[in-house]
Amino acid sequence: MKYSLNSKKVADAAHEWLINRGVRTLDIAEITYTLQREYYDSLTIEECLASVEQVLSKREVQNAILTGIQLDLLAEEGKLLSPLQEMIENDEGLYGCDEILALSIVNVYGSIGLTNFGYIDKLKPGIVNKLNDKSGPHKHTFLDDIVGAIAASASSRIAHRKQEEIEKKGLIPPSS
Amino acid sequence: MKYSLNSKKVADAAHEWLINRGVRTLDIAEITYTLQREYYDSLTIEECLASVEQVLSKREVQNAILTGIQLDLLAEEGKLLSPLQEMIENDEGLYGCDEILALSIVNVYGSIGLTNFGYIDKLKPGIVNKLNDKSGPHKHTFLDDIVGAIAASASSRIAHRKQEEIEKKGLIPPSS
Amino acid sequence: MKYSLNSKKVADAAHEWLINRGVRTLDIAEITYTLQREYYDSLTIEECLASVEQVLSKREVQNAILTGIQLDLLAEEGKLLSPLQEMIENDEGLYGCDEILALSIVNVYGSIGLTNFGYIDKLKPGIVNKLNDKSGPHKHTFLDDIVGAIAASASSRIAHRKQEEIEKKGLIPPSS
Amino acid sequence: MKYSLNSKKVADAAHEWLINRGVRTLDIAEITYTLQREYYDSLTIEECLASVEQVLSKREVQNAILTGIQLDLLAEEGKLLSPLQEMIENDEGLYGCDEILALSIVNVYGSIGLTNFGYIDKLKPGIVNKLNDKSGPHKHTFLDDIVGAIAASASSRIAHRKQEEIEKKGLIPPSS
Repeated sequence: MKYSLNSKKVADAAHEWLINRGVRTLDIAEITYTLQREYYDSLTIEECLASVEQVLSKREVQNAILTGIQLDLLAEEGKLLSPLQEMIENDEGLYGCDEILALSIVNVYGSIGLTNFGYIDKLKPGIVNKLNDKSGPHKHTFLDDIVGAIAASASSRIAHRKQEEIEKKGLIPPSS
Repeated sequence: MKYSLNSKKVADAAHEWLINRGVRTLDIAEITYTLQREYYDSLTIEECLASVEQVLSKREVQNAILTGIQLDLLAEEGKLLSPLQEMIENDEGLYGCDEILALSIVNVYGSIGLTNFGYIDKLKPGIVNKLNDKSGPHKHTFLDDIVGAIAASASSRIAHRKQEEIEKKGLIPPSS
Repeated sequence: MKYSLNSKKVADAAHEWLINRGVRTLDIAEITYTLQREYYDSLTIEECLASVEQVLSKREVQNAILTGIQLDLLAEEGKLLSPLQEMIENDEGLYGCDEILALSIVNVYGSIGLTNFGYIDKLKPGIVNKLNDKSGPHKHTFLDDIVGAIAASASSRIAHRKQEEIEKKGLIPPSS
Repeated sequence: MKYSLNSKKVADAAHEWLINRGVRTLDIAEITYTLQREYYDSLTIEECLASVEQVLSKREVQNAILTGIQLDLLAEEGKLLSPLQEMIENDEGLYGCDEILALSIVNVYGSIGLTNFGYIDKLKPGIVNKLNDKSGPHKHTFLDDIVGAIAASASSRIAHRKQEEIEKKGLIPPSS
């Protein structure tokens, strides 16, 4: 049978795999909310949720999600070849391909998401901290970075939209 | 007077500066058309033009255009400090900041534009070749890369849209 | 047993996996030679080989090699989950994570390798063409991009070294 | 007179321009030390200083320094064209080309520097905070990001070197 890309299948899979790995859209939106509420008083969790959904609708983001979770799953099952198995299984600090995949998400929303990504990665708020917990059976070497990147991208998207609102209304922007 | 970002002013300036430096939207669209017509028989120059316009509507792209053209202009007028002046004036191959700025444009449309960007940069089709001509008074060290990046991004955008069309109509995708 | 990164094991594995997938260091050096001999008359294949070896000695490059080949192998064996399996198996043009991983190699050597990477990816010289042949049982969705990125990085490295030589000898650089 | 790249001149200029803008190598090393001492008990400021010097010896880093400081200087003197002048002068949050240039520095040392870069950019330790102070006559829109990127790269370099030491001595790595 001839191969043919099915975009809906890819989008649905990205959504399901996140859920299966314990990450709800709301968990990601909460990080975005935490990062952005200090800049925008009127920001609601609903706006953050809508922003995360928009980020998740991008093909590049879906591809990164599927690839990262697949590698996490295989590492968990011990099905990767040594020494890649050990590096991913142990979230080796000098591995770096997890950050690279995450960066490809951030890049789609311009470089202003970079800072938030790095900050999330260091502080590990909410769901990122849970994913990073090494005591359980799960390995989330890629997923914690991917979730951080989605939250950072949603933050960047909000900054752009708030500027739009300000310009439409003639309001004064937040002091940075 | 308090500073406040004016997005329309930025968008208009990006458009005007391109025109003032001899680059019409159609010139960029022609590169996109040249790159993509072999994959899509029905592709029209109008579709390419619309795709280039969409790329140009992105804030990240506008910022890169303004920054790159500004540096080209200052190099032309000899107003940069040595040795940066000489590097930009002479399009030094080991300088690299021109490619970096261009890459930030390509990144917004996902990594599939990367290949087209590199290809355009080597083959220098149409307007890129004109910009790269060192015999005249103009210095386009940044602009040739930026134009190549816009054309590559527009190509990437077309690939995504054609896929959408194919999926909607149930057609078979082009063999890559 | 406590995990501890073994850098020699990682370096050796990267080398072996390349060989097992049909890529010799010389094959990569030949691409570099093809790209660079027009700029440097005196360039030898031995210099290109030494440059490729240096690129291969970088941890970031080794990590990308292991990750990419692992995904290619799993796709070949049909062990990835759908729809990621189909995308990688069929080298889906809109997938893009293969280019992202390759870009992480190129970035280590500065942005001047970008152009060569895109050019190689389009023209598919030598071993890249072989890897890209879809008629056999092998899937090299990631590896062709990785090999292109290594060859591009080695080219960039040569450009830097030739400049050093020129400056030491007081010679005139090649006109670009 | 024929142009010819003079690498020593570029390196010296990068060093001098940093000094002229109030940034000493030691200031950058202190950020690196702050970031890394929690991981490595025996880390000294001298090691951090040596690492920063190594980062500063890279051509890509020097080019980014010169380009960024040049734009800052021109913004300070009001010599850029509107609306680029206003965006750089006011360190516009949605501008982003400052982060892009900084990212090109971080990339040379692999993606593990990304996290530190974002963290520094948010927390603004030491000299980054001083550069970011908007009350004086100076505009450091690019330089604060560049300094953060150099400190992050030096941190990444130290992580790699400490791993080398550990492997040579057969010591146990720090728990991440």
